[in-house]
Amino acid sequence: MLDGVFLALADPTRRAVIHRLGRGPASVGDLAREATMTLPSFMKHVRMLESNGLIRTAKSGRVRTCELNRERFAVVEDWLAQQRRLWEGRTDRLERFVTDTQERKPT
Amino acid sequence: MLDGVFLALADPTRRAVIHRLGRGPASVGDLAREATMTLPSFMKHVRMLESNGLIRTAKSGRVRTCELNRERFAVVEDWLAQQRRLWEGRTDRLERFVTDTQERKPT
Repeated sequence: MLDGVFLALADPTRRAVIHRLGRGPASVGDLAREATMTLPSFMKHVRMLESNGLIRTAKSGRVRTCELNRERFAVVEDWLAQQRRLWEGRTDRLERFVTDTQERKPT
Repeated sequence: MLDGVFLALADPTRRAVIHRLGRGPASVGDLAREATMTLPSFMKHVRMLESNGLIRTAKSGRVRTCELNRERFAVVEDWLAQQRRLWEGRTDRLERFVTDTQERKPT
């Protein structure tokens, strides 16, 4: 799951789409124009973002609209927070050790 | 820059190395054993992490030690925070609109 999400984010066109959708939903046609890409090339990026759950798309008539699936970003944020807790826990333990050692010093 | 960092994170072996190094530096040999990989296969992952700035390595005698470059994770965290500010700004504006509209209703 994380593999696909990170891979989907590893591309400037896809990150630009995410950034654009942060301002609100948009049609695939408009997004492709903003990316100055042909629709078939752009659709690969849309599919990559959708299959990894970062966006949702819905077709109404001939227009496919994309919107951000904000909740999905939590898997990345959670993973990063988990790593950070590990480092900070380690730093805390180191600080405690240093403090304890200093406290034990004869004054 | 973000492309390479996200790509480096899009692999379970590399994420496991990052997680392990969160507890402190380790030798390439130990990390490869923990990943149950041959050294040549594992070195590809090490190089990918190092070239994208997520870890630093240093050789002392025959042992290459890896350590996390925590600062590098800020590029990902900053990008995510930037997107989130955009959504939350949008939600704030929407809330203000709803509140303003309700206040203008005749009571």
